[in-house]
Amino acid sequence: MAAPTWVALDGDDTLWHSEVGFQAVEAEYRNILSAYVARDTISPALLTREVANLSVFGYGVKAMTLSMIETAIEITGGAVSNADIARVVELGRWLLCHPVELLDGVGAVVPELASKYRLLLITKGDLLHQERKVAESGLAPHFVAIEIVSEKDPARYGGVLSQHGIAPSDFVMVGNSLRSDIAPVLELGGRAVHIPHGVTWAAEHVSAAEEAALSAAVPVLTSMSMLPAALAALK
Amino acid sequence: MAAPTWVALDGDDTLWHSEVGFQAVEAEYRNILSAYVARDTISPALLTREVANLSVFGYGVKAMTLSMIETAIEITGGAVSNADIARVVELGRWLLCHPVELLDGVGAVVPELASKYRLLLITKGDLLHQERKVAESGLAPHFVAIEIVSEKDPARYGGVLSQHGIAPSDFVMVGNSLRSDIAPVLELGGRAVHIPHGVTWAAEHVSAAEEAALSAAVPVLTSMSMLPAALAALK
Repeated sequence: MAAPTWVALDGDDTLWHSEVGFQAVEAEYRNILSAYVARDTISPALLTREVANLSVFGYGVKAMTLSMIETAIEITGGAVSNADIARVVELGRWLLCHPVELLDGVGAVVPELASKYRLLLITKGDLLHQERKVAESGLAPHFVAIEIVSEKDPARYGGVLSQHGIAPSDFVMVGNSLRSDIAPVLELGGRAVHIPHGVTWAAEHVSAAEEAALSAAVPVLTSMSMLPAALAALK
Repeated sequence: MAAPTWVALDGDDTLWHSEVGFQAVEAEYRNILSAYVARDTISPALLTREVANLSVFGYGVKAMTLSMIETAIEITGGAVSNADIARVVELGRWLLCHPVELLDGVGAVVPELASKYRLLLITKGDLLHQERKVAESGLAPHFVAIEIVSEKDPARYGGVLSQHGIAPSDFVMVGNSLRSDIAPVLELGGRAVHIPHGVTWAAEHVSAAEEAALSAAVPVLTSMSMLPAALAALK
């Protein structure tokens, strides 16, 4: 294939820190609920509830907050205090307002890429929260378009490509999630570059076999700073 | 001005019923909380909380549900039971899953418009919920693009227009909300058609003076069935 014209970047944990904030909230949630139940039962119950709620609540902080409230009531058998439920809502508000912190190298690499490729930002989650993070990142002027999607599956990627008139062979997706950023794009016939992030939400995990297969199929970088060279080397 | 090439339709309460569902949820919420506090204090407290939360939580059902939980804890002085908080979360889930019901005339008018204009759907709210309503409506194939935005202000409309290369003078917005569908589009130099809906969320209201001025500036229709003729009459 020829060198790509279009490069798309994921947002959360590719351009800026995200999961570390979710995990800080979940740690504080465990602190709150450990007054009622065994600490090690809390996160598994929350994950089960979050996954069950995904198809109706979607991704993002508001969905997580509603799942935290439901889980708190369930696993405490209704004993959780109103004050503690209010603290859970405050955790959600804190995370929605948390300042954006770019990952290493992003501030230099994104403008460099914008001078060579047509750049897209493709991110999922709460619409307003993602918009706020994009605005606060200061990176928006470097992107041709910013696409906030409810799910990262072949259908959603296909919609973005057709909207911009992009052939899959002319498209490279860059992100930290094998499940959301790499697998669906390869399935469409596009290319991808994986920049793993140390911390990944359990619901984003893929099987070890799938991880091995996907990691063998795409360049895997340890830092955003390696991306310009990796894209230039794509054939 | 010439006849427009682009016509954009709002979703909630323009194409399908929405506010009636929110109001049914709020009525049930009042039923739940009236066991604790005077019934007529509930909706004003909720509205105050929703408006205060808008800049962080945004629009839509999940935002409303979180505001209902906060308000319930606040106005009952922490007396609301966990079982009742769980019922509030269930109200949110019910509304997110509620079937889409098209308004009168929509099913016939949208295909007719699609044969004459380049149609956009511009709607605001929860990303996943709006996508589900669009899909369930069966109307998606008639639209050139579906734009789900976090707010309907001149900046967001300007972004949609520039993304599609549309001149404001070639654009007509059709919707039920003077505040969200009419005023910002007129401000950009576009045209608009108002199809009021009997029920409007209090936070969408404009002042009586603004209502009079806006209603004098645009065609006001009583039904979607009148839209093709109103658009054809635009000069």
